[in-house]
Amino acid sequence: MSELRKDPLCERWVIISTERGRRPTDFKIEKAERKRGFCPFDPGNENYVPPEIYAVRKVGSVPNDSNWELRVVPNKFPALRIEGGLDKRGIGMYDMMNGIGAHEVIIETPNHDEMTGNMPFYRVRNIVTAYKERIADLHKDKRMKYVLVFKNFGVLAGASLEHSHSQLISLPILPKRVSENIKGAEMYYDYRGRCAICDMLQQELYSQERIVEENDSFVSLCPFASRFPFEMQIIPRGHQTHYEQQNEKTYNDFASILKSAIKKLAKALDNPPYNFVLQNAPFTKKCDDYYHWFLEIMPRLTRIAGFEWGSGFYINPTPPEEATKFLKNLTVD
Amino acid sequence: MSELRKDPLCERWVIISTERGRRPTDFKIEKAERKRGFCPFDPGNENYVPPEIYAVRKVGSVPNDSNWELRVVPNKFPALRIEGGLDKRGIGMYDMMNGIGAHEVIIETPNHDEMTGNMPFYRVRNIVTAYKERIADLHKDKRMKYVLVFKNFGVLAGASLEHSHSQLISLPILPKRVSENIKGAEMYYDYRGRCAICDMLQQELYSQERIVEENDSFVSLCPFASRFPFEMQIIPRGHQTHYEQQNEKTYNDFASILKSAIKKLAKALDNPPYNFVLQNAPFTKKCDDYYHWFLEIMPRLTRIAGFEWGSGFYINPTPPEEATKFLKNLTVD
Repeated sequence: MSELRKDPLCERWVIISTERGRRPTDFKIEKAERKRGFCPFDPGNENYVPPEIYAVRKVGSVPNDSNWELRVVPNKFPALRIEGGLDKRGIGMYDMMNGIGAHEVIIETPNHDEMTGNMPFYRVRNIVTAYKERIADLHKDKRMKYVLVFKNFGVLAGASLEHSHSQLISLPILPKRVSENIKGAEMYYDYRGRCAICDMLQQELYSQERIVEENDSFVSLCPFASRFPFEMQIIPRGHQTHYEQQNEKTYNDFASILKSAIKKLAKALDNPPYNFVLQNAPFTKKCDDYYHWFLEIMPRLTRIAGFEWGSGFYINPTPPEEATKFLKNLTVD
Repeated sequence: MSELRKDPLCERWVIISTERGRRPTDFKIEKAERKRGFCPFDPGNENYVPPEIYAVRKVGSVPNDSNWELRVVPNKFPALRIEGGLDKRGIGMYDMMNGIGAHEVIIETPNHDEMTGNMPFYRVRNIVTAYKERIADLHKDKRMKYVLVFKNFGVLAGASLEHSHSQLISLPILPKRVSENIKGAEMYYDYRGRCAICDMLQQELYSQERIVEENDSFVSLCPFASRFPFEMQIIPRGHQTHYEQQNEKTYNDFASILKSAIKKLAKALDNPPYNFVLQNAPFTKKCDDYYHWFLEIMPRLTRIAGFEWGSGFYINPTPPEEATKFLKNLTVD
């Protein structure tokens, strides 16, 4: 059983894997080249991962056979486990609880080399739906406070397998980053009576300086205070709080602008490593008036170093206005 | 002039270098091998860096000649510049100010290949004194709110030159991480009437489970909620708020335990990349009763990925108790 431990000074929790503790020599091994050839996410290798939780399958196929379009499976090496009780407790002045939660992998395509930017549209649409379905399903577990959906692409962005996949982790505590955003949005709402993201979007659409692309339901842009070169956000045009509660047209438009954003980054920066994160509203806090979901995409071109760790601030060598000029003018269709 | 921009939702500032914006092709260049051979920090190359601000020099030498033991120089590519006014302003709903601050490099040794763990003691002692002198000097600039001292070792930890050096950045705003620690320490003090770090140290010394080393003035340990495998903290035994206000015995003991901690990590993990950060008290906030300075050392063995970016939480595969066992039993003298 892994443990959740809280920093004694700030609201930061850490998942400590006590059961498979890595010893110093384990890290030396990781420095070596990764094995090539075998991929547990390829069709035919279904028995190398746990049984599927959700799937988009071809007509006539049965669960866990090799005729699939998309699969969601539990992570074989989960950071958290679904079985057991939380058992919140203190050890002297420290706070901790058991590592209860879900850790799932969304295998996005049966094709080993296919990437988000060059998938057919219907696959991206499948992915977007899978996120919605899994978030909605995981809401039912009353122990959980949040479901975080994210993608790591490329070794430098933390991906351990190259076959296109994303992940989700459900957590028994509200993540620090989400709390901070909610608190900021709440303060803004208390002061102005409006959603901060709606206001920001209005200002951005007026100036057009940082807008990369627009469609009926979404805007993609490089945020004013971008932490990373070519950082992007995809934001619903209208005020939407919960990702998982939208209509078909919205998911179509989201899949379309997501595919385009990733393709633009791939073209501009030669398939850079990147992370994306769905900044969704929590399901345990009533924040419909002021919280507005969005997706953050962070190309990993710069290194996080002592300054960033120590300050929580970032140094970004590329102004978002410059990044926007490049991305906006790239044609990807 | 670079700019400081604030995230519209949370208290996170970003330094945007508007004057030397990097274009997509600049990042492609960075992927290639670094140039080897020439080092601007080697003795004899003093004219490749700006003139020194502080130095420990050999008898009979003059400023900026090559007979030095340690030099502090302005960063040639500074994230912030010292000249000008802050000019705090809003652009619609966004907050920003000019990128005013100092960015200095501490060149720790004239010997290109010497690392902190295998330097003679007197050199580490020089480094520790240089931090103190520069922090005290930068306090005099009333525009500044904080001086962050940090070290990046190894390419994976963000070091762009291999010659042993550390850096400092003075900032016109209190860093988010520092604010969070101060807020936590203040809440604890309001509730218990004691310093949180003093209490934590007492608990750790009693259990001994995570203590790596002790001397008269300091304790090194692996923190209970370590974010990274083999993360360490060096904490003054007595209640000390400001790093730069201590006596000679304290700096001696700090240099000694710092050298030992780095040497232990180098031995256990085969010279891993690492960052360290001095978590000092700010000089603009009266927090003597409850803030307690410490040094954080973070080996960079795991990658920060979507989960960490999205949540502000961390997954650590090595329990600090296991890391302690390895580090405690390593002999480094």
